[in-house]
Amino acid sequence: MTLSDLYPSPVLQDIERLRGEVCRLHAELVRWGLVTWTSGNVSARVPGADLLVIKPSGVSYDELTPETMVVTDLEANLVDGRHSPSSDTAAHAYVYAHMPHVGGVVHTHSPYATAWAARGEPVPCVITAMADEFGGDIPVGPFALIGDDSIGRGIVETLRGHRSPAVLMRQHGPFTIGASARSAVKAAVMCEDVARTVHFARQLGPVQRLPEQAIDSLFERYQNVYGQR
Amino acid sequence: MTLSDLYPSPVLQDIERLRGEVCRLHAELVRWGLVTWTSGNVSARVPGADLLVIKPSGVSYDELTPETMVVTDLEANLVDGRHSPSSDTAAHAYVYAHMPHVGGVVHTHSPYATAWAARGEPVPCVITAMADEFGGDIPVGPFALIGDDSIGRGIVETLRGHRSPAVLMRQHGPFTIGASARSAVKAAVMCEDVARTVHFARQLGPVQRLPEQAIDSLFERYQNVYGQR
Amino acid sequence: MTLSDLYPSPVLQDIERLRGEVCRLHAELVRWGLVTWTSGNVSARVPGADLLVIKPSGVSYDELTPETMVVTDLEANLVDGRHSPSSDTAAHAYVYAHMPHVGGVVHTHSPYATAWAARGEPVPCVITAMADEFGGDIPVGPFALIGDDSIGRGIVETLRGHRSPAVLMRQHGPFTIGASARSAVKAAVMCEDVARTVHFARQLGPVQRLPEQAIDSLFERYQNVYGQR
Amino acid sequence: MTLSDLYPSPVLQDIERLRGEVCRLHAELVRWGLVTWTSGNVSARVPGADLLVIKPSGVSYDELTPETMVVTDLEANLVDGRHSPSSDTAAHAYVYAHMPHVGGVVHTHSPYATAWAARGEPVPCVITAMADEFGGDIPVGPFALIGDDSIGRGIVETLRGHRSPAVLMRQHGPFTIGASARSAVKAAVMCEDVARTVHFARQLGPVQRLPEQAIDSLFERYQNVYGQR
Repeated sequence: MTLSDLYPSPVLQDIERLRGEVCRLHAELVRWGLVTWTSGNVSARVPGADLLVIKPSGVSYDELTPETMVVTDLEANLVDGRHSPSSDTAAHAYVYAHMPHVGGVVHTHSPYATAWAARGEPVPCVITAMADEFGGDIPVGPFALIGDDSIGRGIVETLRGHRSPAVLMRQHGPFTIGASARSAVKAAVMCEDVARTVHFARQLGPVQRLPEQAIDSLFERYQNVYGQR
Repeated sequence: MTLSDLYPSPVLQDIERLRGEVCRLHAELVRWGLVTWTSGNVSARVPGADLLVIKPSGVSYDELTPETMVVTDLEANLVDGRHSPSSDTAAHAYVYAHMPHVGGVVHTHSPYATAWAARGEPVPCVITAMADEFGGDIPVGPFALIGDDSIGRGIVETLRGHRSPAVLMRQHGPFTIGASARSAVKAAVMCEDVARTVHFARQLGPVQRLPEQAIDSLFERYQNVYGQR
Repeated sequence: MTLSDLYPSPVLQDIERLRGEVCRLHAELVRWGLVTWTSGNVSARVPGADLLVIKPSGVSYDELTPETMVVTDLEANLVDGRHSPSSDTAAHAYVYAHMPHVGGVVHTHSPYATAWAARGEPVPCVITAMADEFGGDIPVGPFALIGDDSIGRGIVETLRGHRSPAVLMRQHGPFTIGASARSAVKAAVMCEDVARTVHFARQLGPVQRLPEQAIDSLFERYQNVYGQR
Repeated sequence: MTLSDLYPSPVLQDIERLRGEVCRLHAELVRWGLVTWTSGNVSARVPGADLLVIKPSGVSYDELTPETMVVTDLEANLVDGRHSPSSDTAAHAYVYAHMPHVGGVVHTHSPYATAWAARGEPVPCVITAMADEFGGDIPVGPFALIGDDSIGRGIVETLRGHRSPAVLMRQHGPFTIGASARSAVKAAVMCEDVARTVHFARQLGPVQRLPEQAIDSLFERYQNVYGQR
């Protein structure tokens, strides 16, 4: 059976659109210096279906096209595509299955965020840009091996009840979530940006966390006032 | 009423010209690595009118065109444009309203300058390039929340009577001013450059401030002899 | 005598193909920031012949073409090409002569890897990306002067019996090997990437090596499951 | 009087050629990240005449053309060109006047080299790439103010009798020399490269200088064997 036998036309159209969008968003990972060689991956949930669209495994960024994107179900089984899906697909799928508001997931080994992850240390919320986007510290998740659902569980357990769309999986790297794949990519880009700035700040002396009230006020405003209505 | 009902033709022509100039100058923020995603903004005062031209809020650098630039008055009220103005517009507007010699303002979260800001530590004037452009240390301004005129006031109170065109707003990031938007962009670029170099210098040992007399002599010469007449 | 008098047609075709491949792979060294000016070199073994294809010495990356690539034997004697081969050819040749499974060799002075080499300190395996690609620490080889086979010997003695495809030659820089030139380039890119991330991690505190069993499991999986079949 | 009244045809042709070459070499400063905004400059000696070709002052790198290059005599007086010469022209001119073997001079504020200069600390020769290009440590010159010949004198007094083509002028930045402008640019690029690598190495622990004999042997070989004959 082909995809068009299994899914109604609006889902098929969404898959088509998301293949293009997910493909293009990978270029943002390259542009902002988050990925090396073939590491890193973006996925999007297919609305109205238990499906996701994700990068193929180990394919270089230059060779990605909408057609090379892979469709899987929320248990990471291949549904459509000529390639094997990213080896991180199970983690993405687990997040979609357990966090219904999430529409996009991104994973990278971006260097500064991964350095905080390597020490198992949250990035403290010491600058307004962090309060804006993350609403507090960027938390650390457990160390978990690839191969079962332990990475996915670690992400979900850490981010549930947290304002941060980013988690630093211990000795591994950041995962970010968003209402859309684009929001998750933005969170990945900002996560590396603030991980870097706070790294620089800490190198030459201590830094002070922002007062909780200031963080709340900045987060509130940024989520509701920033950008175009 | 449209803009052309309210302002004489030379002002309208200046607005047209400044839309193009402010738009193009944002590309310099990207080129010199000062901005991430949609952060950072450049504005220009419209000569002979209490108006400014500034970046729209939350629009990505690739999508900026002269037409997307926004015109506001010096209390940050929208005067012309299809987009909402930058969420930092109030700070820019306050500077223009209180510093009549300023023709351009730039705000970024450039990483090294923001790292000094995060610690609340001025960049000490230890290299000739800093004396040239800043005439001394780059000072730190107060911590101020977005939403009223406290950021604008912090900038103006810190830079008044100071030779530096840059201020590091505490736990936030640099704001720079100039006679033109281009000069303010140059100050933002040089601010990050010297913040980085002095960061590197300090990482491996102490550094000595330049003698006051050397700073004066370098600043004087650079402001009056450097460049084309 | 010309090359075509000495070698059968399949070897000549392989040389032709490898000239193009080795030339193109040098662009990856530039793209990932591993090389400065004319430093760094990639080579490939010619299958079925005691020959290798390598970069010419001191030629800038912009000027490399398939035709400027040089063919030598496994004692680094010029066999074909209008240019002198890389001054590191003897080291490459020694590796091919003593490690029959190696099809590609890369040498760079990439900054973070070379910094670890300068201290003579192995990069400890503290993040999953290192376990994946290197299967443990990246080891340090002896200090050896150019001019005889001591660099080649140092590489071979260090990498033999080691899972890592990268060695940091003391106070010199990294050499990497692979089944193909492309694999060796990938190892060089990942070597710099993890050397950088672990450098950042260590700058702000201690880091813990991954448990041996986790390393084994990650390495095993990455070598056998990652990528396209 | 015009240039063609004052100089014989071969000199005029050399000036023409050097305008193009000096202009193009400035793009290398940008490419290798040595310069910010309009800082940094390259010059070339005009063979057989007491003249040099140098960048105009304060002109951005995008706007440089062969025609905007400036010709001065060896006392930094304007001889030909529509622009004012670089504000560092007097230092370049002094070097040509006092070091007859020098055909090119480069000055930048490249960040890592300038960081060592800010501390007044030579870059120690701890990696083979430094021995190759610099034949030892990169020395520090005196602090000197712009405006008379004290920068030029500081450069000449430091580099005379030294194998290094680079000097770190204290609390200012690197100057490099070469037989040609291209060689001086290469020295500037390699100076930043090794300043960066040794900075990284030193951040995480002590580094050992190479033995003098190894340095001599590497320098000797690199100067005589490396590259194309």
